[in-house]
Amino acid sequence: MGKVSSVSPFAPTQLARLPAIDGVAFATAEAGIRYKKRTDLLLAVLDEGTAVAGVLTQSKTASAPVLACRKHLKKGAARALVVNSGNANAFTGQRGREAVDITIEHAVEAVGCKPHEVFVASTGVIGEPLDAAKFAHLLAALAKRAEPDAFEKAAKAILTTDTYPKLATRSALIGDTEVTINGICKGAGMIAPDMATMLCFIFTDAAISADALQDLATQHVQTTFNCMTIDGDTSTSDTCLAFATGRAAGRGQKPVGKAKSKKLQAFSDALHDLMRDLAIQVAKDGEGLSKFVTFEVEGAKSWAAARKIALACANSPILKTAIAGEDPNWGRVVMAVGKSGEAVDRDRLGIWFGPHCVALGGERAEDYDEKTVAAYMKNREIVIRVNVGVGKAAATVWTCDLTHAYVSINADYRS
Amino acid sequence: MGKVSSVSPFAPTQLARLPAIDGVAFATAEAGIRYKKRTDLLLAVLDEGTAVAGVLTQSKTASAPVLACRKHLKKGAARALVVNSGNANAFTGQRGREAVDITIEHAVEAVGCKPHEVFVASTGVIGEPLDAAKFAHLLAALAKRAEPDAFEKAAKAILTTDTYPKLATRSALIGDTEVTINGICKGAGMIAPDMATMLCFIFTDAAISADALQDLATQHVQTTFNCMTIDGDTSTSDTCLAFATGRAAGRGQKPVGKAKSKKLQAFSDALHDLMRDLAIQVAKDGEGLSKFVTFEVEGAKSWAAARKIALACANSPILKTAIAGEDPNWGRVVMAVGKSGEAVDRDRLGIWFGPHCVALGGERAEDYDEKTVAAYMKNREIVIRVNVGVGKAAATVWTCDLTHAYVSINADYRS
Repeated sequence: MGKVSSVSPFAPTQLARLPAIDGVAFATAEAGIRYKKRTDLLLAVLDEGTAVAGVLTQSKTASAPVLACRKHLKKGAARALVVNSGNANAFTGQRGREAVDITIEHAVEAVGCKPHEVFVASTGVIGEPLDAAKFAHLLAALAKRAEPDAFEKAAKAILTTDTYPKLATRSALIGDTEVTINGICKGAGMIAPDMATMLCFIFTDAAISADALQDLATQHVQTTFNCMTIDGDTSTSDTCLAFATGRAAGRGQKPVGKAKSKKLQAFSDALHDLMRDLAIQVAKDGEGLSKFVTFEVEGAKSWAAARKIALACANSPILKTAIAGEDPNWGRVVMAVGKSGEAVDRDRLGIWFGPHCVALGGERAEDYDEKTVAAYMKNREIVIRVNVGVGKAAATVWTCDLTHAYVSINADYRS
Repeated sequence: MGKVSSVSPFAPTQLARLPAIDGVAFATAEAGIRYKKRTDLLLAVLDEGTAVAGVLTQSKTASAPVLACRKHLKKGAARALVVNSGNANAFTGQRGREAVDITIEHAVEAVGCKPHEVFVASTGVIGEPLDAAKFAHLLAALAKRAEPDAFEKAAKAILTTDTYPKLATRSALIGDTEVTINGICKGAGMIAPDMATMLCFIFTDAAISADALQDLATQHVQTTFNCMTIDGDTSTSDTCLAFATGRAAGRGQKPVGKAKSKKLQAFSDALHDLMRDLAIQVAKDGEGLSKFVTFEVEGAKSWAAARKIALACANSPILKTAIAGEDPNWGRVVMAVGKSGEAVDRDRLGIWFGPHCVALGGERAEDYDEKTVAAYMKNREIVIRVNVGVGKAAATVWTCDLTHAYVSINADYRS
C-alpha cells in the first residue's frame, strides 16, 4: 500500500496568497459550535451592488441553509455570507429552519441589508440541532471588524476534517480592466467523517450581472466540481456561491450583462481554471488518500457519456482499492467501463496507465509488461486513460484511492 | 470494528443437502486452469428435452461466454453446461471467442448434441487469454462419469474466492406432482479479488416451457439477485441460468407452457424463495464482511424507486464503513437517501435501526438514545428501515459492511 499519513501527501508546502478584493471583507470567530480552539464562524461582508450566483446540492434531503440560498438566489443580490462549521443544520426539521431565520435576522442587523441579501452555509454533523444562539449574536461585532485581506483566515474557518485550507486566485481582463477572482473551498462530498459537504465561495470585483455569473457558474461546475469524487457520496449541503462586487467598474470596467458576451471570454476562462484548481485541491485532500487519480475517458458519444464512464471508474471501490495497492489491475477498468451503461465498443477499447498501453482493440496489449506498469503504479499521481471507441467526446474526472485509512477514519470516528 | 476472519462469519456449519434431479448429472475435474489442487471445471449433462432460460450481465464489456449464452438462449434448449473457474475469458477478443468455440465443439462431441444446446460460463481473471486446450479434451471423459447426486461437488468447482459453496433446494407441487428445484451459486459482483462474477445455475425436473421459465427467471431476478450488492460493481460475466429437464412429466406432471398459468404459482413461489436464499448466501460471503446488512425502504412511489434508494444506501462506502465501525451514524442514511435522486419527503422521513426509531418527521426522534442504538450495532445482522413518506411501495436490498479486510483483500491480491 502507498504511504498514508494524518495530513494529505498533497498538502501544499505554501498556501496560495490571495490579494484583497475591492468590496469584500471577512471576519471569523471561535463560536465553539462543535470544535474547540479553532475558528468555526465566518462572516463575509459584501458591498452594495454585489451580484450573486450559485449551484446547490441536488440532494432530496437538502439542508435548511441550502433551501434558504436557493430562495435568495432568485433575487441575485448579496450583502452578507455567514458560514459555520461543525454542524450542517441538515435534517433538523422546523428547528433547522428557525436557526437559519435567526442567523439571517442577526446578519441583517449587523450589515444593514435585506434578508434576501444574506446567504448562509453550514457544514458538519447531520441531524444534530444547530443552536443559532451560540453564534448569531457574534455577527454584529464581526461586521465591525471585517477586513479585506483575510482570505486565509476565511478558508480556515470553514474547514471540517480537511487537512489543509484550499485557496486559489486568478486574474483576467474584461476590456482593458484587470479583475481578480478569488476562491476558497472545503472538503468534498461525504469525504469527511460525519462532516458532509463541499463548500466553495468565489469572490470577484468584476462588474457582471447575476444572470451572467449564474450562467458561467452553472456551466463551469459541470466540468470542475461535478467531475471530482471521493467516494461517490453526495452531501446534503453542497454549496458553491459566486459573488461579484462590481467594484472594477470604478476602475473603468464596463459592466457586462450576458455570459455570452465576448468581453467575458477571458474572465470565463479564468473562472473555470480557478474552479478546476479548487476541485483538484479537494480531491487531493480526499479522506485517507495515498494517491491522486485522474480518469480521462475519450472516444465517447457525448461529454455526458464520457463523464459517466469516468465516474463509474472513479467510484468503483474495487478499482480504487487496487490503485491503493499499487496493482495495475486493468481488468477492473474494463469492468467499471462496462457497468456504466453508456455505449462503448468492447472490441475497440483501449486502456493506458500513464504512458503505458495495457489494452488495445478489446484485448490485452501485445507488448504489455506487468512489471513496467506495476512500477508506474508506485507514482503518487496516477493517470488512467480509456478510449471507448464509439465517438469523439472526452471527459476528465479526478479522484483518489480507497485506503485502509478511509475505513479507519469513517469506521472509528464516532464509535 | 466487528471481527473479520478468513472465512465468512456467516459460513454455514452444515451445507444444504440437495437431492438428485431426474435428467441432470454432473462431473468435475482439476484442470489446473489457474488453481492447483482443487476442481475448476464442471460439466452438467442434461437429458434431451431440457428447457433453458437465463439472465445475463448488462455490462457493455460482457465476456465471450456471456455472448454465446445470449445467442443460444434464443433456441431455449439445453443438453450441456460447461463452467470453468480461475479465468473469466472476458476482454480476450478473438482468442476469447475461439476458446468458447473449442469448448462448445468438445461438449457437442462428449454429450452428442447440437452447438446451440451447449451453455458456457467462465469466472476468474479478466483480460487473461483462456487456453481451452487445457480442459476441453477432458469433457468426453467427464460426460461418461457424470452422476446425478453431485450438487455439492458442482457447487465447489465453480467457486473462486468464495469462502463457502452456496446451495439451496426447494420443492413445489405442479398439479398433484411434486417437483424439485435445486440451485448452486458463486460469489457476487466484483466481490472477489480479480475474480469477477456471480454465477447461478438452477435445475428442476419440472415440465415447463423455456418461455415460461424465462418469464419467471426474469421476474424473480429483479427482487433477488438484483437486490443484492457487495460493492456496487457489476461483473463482465454475471450469469444466471435455469434448466428444466421436464422429467416430472413421467410422474404425471402435465407440461405447463405459460408463466401466468395458475398451476405454476407454487413453483414460481418456490423458485423465488430459492433465488432469494442464494442471493442472501452470496451477500453473507461478501468480501471481508463482518456484518450482513438489510436495507428495507418503504413509503416510496414505486418498487423501482424504493430499490434505487435502498441501493444508494447499500452502495455508500461511507455508510457501509460506519456500519463496520458499529457506529449508528444515521446521518449517512439521510445523505444516501437524498442522493438517490428518487422522490422522498425530507420532512416525513423516518429511519429505524432494528427496532429503534432514530429519526421521524424529518428530524432526530425525540426519544433517540445513542447508547441503545450503538448497542444494537454490535449485532452481526443489521436491519435498517427507511420510510420516505411519498407512497406505498417498498423494496429490500441485502449487502454487507465495508471493512479493512475488503481493502486488504483487494489491494494486496496481485501486488
